[in-house]
Amino acid sequence: MKQIYLDYNATTPIDASVVEAMMPFFQTHFGNPSSTHSVGRAAREAIEDARAKVSALIGCDRDEVIFTGGGTEASNMAIKGVMFAGGEPGGHMITTAIEHPATIEPARFVERLGCELTVVGCDENGVVDPQAIADAIRPDTRLVSVMHANNEIGTIQPIREIAEICHEKSVVVHADASQSIGKIPAFVDQLDVDLMTVAGHKFYAPKGIGVLFVREGLDIESLLHGAGHEGGLRAGTENTPYIVGLGRAAFLAASLLDESSGISATLRDKFWKTISSNVPRAVAHGMQAERLPNTLSIAFPNVSGAEMLSRVPEVCASLGAACHSSGEHRSGTLHAMGVDQDLMRGTIRFSFGRSSNAEEAERAAMLMVDAWETLKS
Amino acid sequence: MKQIYLDYNATTPIDASVVEAMMPFFQTHFGNPSSTHSVGRAAREAIEDARAKVSALIGCDRDEVIFTGGGTEASNMAIKGVMFAGGEPGGHMITTAIEHPATIEPARFVERLGCELTVVGCDENGVVDPQAIADAIRPDTRLVSVMHANNEIGTIQPIREIAEICHEKSVVVHADASQSIGKIPAFVDQLDVDLMTVAGHKFYAPKGIGVLFVREGLDIESLLHGAGHEGGLRAGTENTPYIVGLGRAAFLAASLLDESSGISATLRDKFWKTISSNVPRAVAHGMQAERLPNTLSIAFPNVSGAEMLSRVPEVCASLGAACHSSGEHRSGTLHAMGVDQDLMRGTIRFSFGRSSNAEEAERAAMLMVDAWETLKS
Repeated sequence: MKQIYLDYNATTPIDASVVEAMMPFFQTHFGNPSSTHSVGRAAREAIEDARAKVSALIGCDRDEVIFTGGGTEASNMAIKGVMFAGGEPGGHMITTAIEHPATIEPARFVERLGCELTVVGCDENGVVDPQAIADAIRPDTRLVSVMHANNEIGTIQPIREIAEICHEKSVVVHADASQSIGKIPAFVDQLDVDLMTVAGHKFYAPKGIGVLFVREGLDIESLLHGAGHEGGLRAGTENTPYIVGLGRAAFLAASLLDESSGISATLRDKFWKTISSNVPRAVAHGMQAERLPNTLSIAFPNVSGAEMLSRVPEVCASLGAACHSSGEHRSGTLHAMGVDQDLMRGTIRFSFGRSSNAEEAERAAMLMVDAWETLKS
Repeated sequence: MKQIYLDYNATTPIDASVVEAMMPFFQTHFGNPSSTHSVGRAAREAIEDARAKVSALIGCDRDEVIFTGGGTEASNMAIKGVMFAGGEPGGHMITTAIEHPATIEPARFVERLGCELTVVGCDENGVVDPQAIADAIRPDTRLVSVMHANNEIGTIQPIREIAEICHEKSVVVHADASQSIGKIPAFVDQLDVDLMTVAGHKFYAPKGIGVLFVREGLDIESLLHGAGHEGGLRAGTENTPYIVGLGRAAFLAASLLDESSGISATLRDKFWKTISSNVPRAVAHGMQAERLPNTLSIAFPNVSGAEMLSRVPEVCASLGAACHSSGEHRSGTLHAMGVDQDLMRGTIRFSFGRSSNAEEAERAAMLMVDAWETLKS
């Protein structure tokens, strides 16, 4: 049975040209980029080339690109980096109830160490109100961390408006752009952010590589202390193959953005049309808000989403977010939106990507309709 | 010009069978291991298989293997994990003057946050005296961190004796085994350690993957907070290909240990014989101590090691350690041993590995002798 993969927000396959770009760095140009001999220098040059490609994707200077071991590390580095800067942890930070655990959990950690934390809610469409952020800012607020696009329902947050409010009060702004990169434009100057998380495996680069954008002049504490790589900000021998792969993926994401967004949006809308015309009272979460073109979070009434998926093993989709430890399913986002228990229970996230096509999407939609018909009673 | 690579302590090429093992996980079994659909489950199973292989290499239970983004992350996690455990940073830790920056710098960080730090020296052979550790232990000492084998000169530290002293006083013991794994046995029970750092790229696995061994029952704070992977200890979507690769490399390291150690030791001794019989007053650092079979740190008298290496671009070796940010060269180990300035300046580290052979080693030794002859006056 061929799987229909509609879980691109969970992770993407690695693009063939990304694998190809990485290959020479496993065995041929394998040197330690810090080594001064020729084997090391070849790796160093490739890393700097990749840095340039990533900087082009997000519109920053090369020196502002800090390679990390993934999105989670980047968000941990941003939050702890600001809250630990200049010595002791202290001060106040603001985040939202719809963030990924890679933001929420570091925020809770710095709170345990003596910082204060305010968690702002969202409206019924899953969008954070900039005014709520403005109201939460205090004289000792150091950091506001808001995701660019929500992983579960795809709503795009008003980062620029939030950033303007914050910068008036000299508060640092971090955006987790893990889900937006490659799906919509995410330029650091347009968003006006000081720190931004990039996660490779959401845009056809490997898992285990990411970037933290750190605006020039912003002084943050390191998360990984050691031998002073990445301008002294991130220690650890550079993962040359994955960095090269991330560079290639960044180039592709920039080149294909318009085309892949358009295809995703078409498939998503067609999929929703099939579901909504066959499943009365089905709900697409966040429908009234600006959303990622590829993400569709649907509540099927009077059924369990988990049971739906287990009846249709051909379709790979997820309940809420996939990046969580297996087992229990909780959706912070739907909860914050005030979605009722029954709809929450019946919610499945479908996310489209580069290999999705109309035939598969239509078949998947019909399979879901059939499963709902069987289970609804 | 074919390079003669004698810098295996800096990094190793990835074994061909490791690359082969990783390949299916880039594009075919690319799923998020936390996804419950079949694409995710295939990745999960491969990760658990790799965990078993690593546990066999270091002699621990599977649940005690925590995959990290490399050795630096593992050592950061060990040190901050113990010193932050149970709430606020506090208490006292002990480390040594010959550690890698991935140990020293996290120790300095926790010191800045209010912990107290004692740095113990070593003898003239680069070995830490267990009695010095015993003397430094205080009632509030939480952690002792000592490397298993030194990266620069290869001396093996008396971890078991140190651990016995620590455990009598309920102090947690961390060993950085980055340089010993694959070169000498490094079993957690023989060493009697509670935490141990494993770095993939030192034994023919990729850069950007490592392990922290965490003994069952030991409660440490996470370093990367987020969605609770790795038994809740290390967040971040698992890097399936590299984890699979690390598993394969662990299997190889265990299988080839005796053979590769023997070959390395033979090459190393032959290399030293050539140097010592042609360069009067050359010194092999740590010669009187138990050392890794593959590591040879030689002080060439009356010359600069950097100039020696730049005269012989065919030979890839390093000044002290390579893992440091490029530029300045400092050797914490030689300094702690009390090596005089002139010998320190003339020191080069040669480290042998699986692809080293007698012909290349002999040619490299003769090239170094020639360079010394030219430069000595």
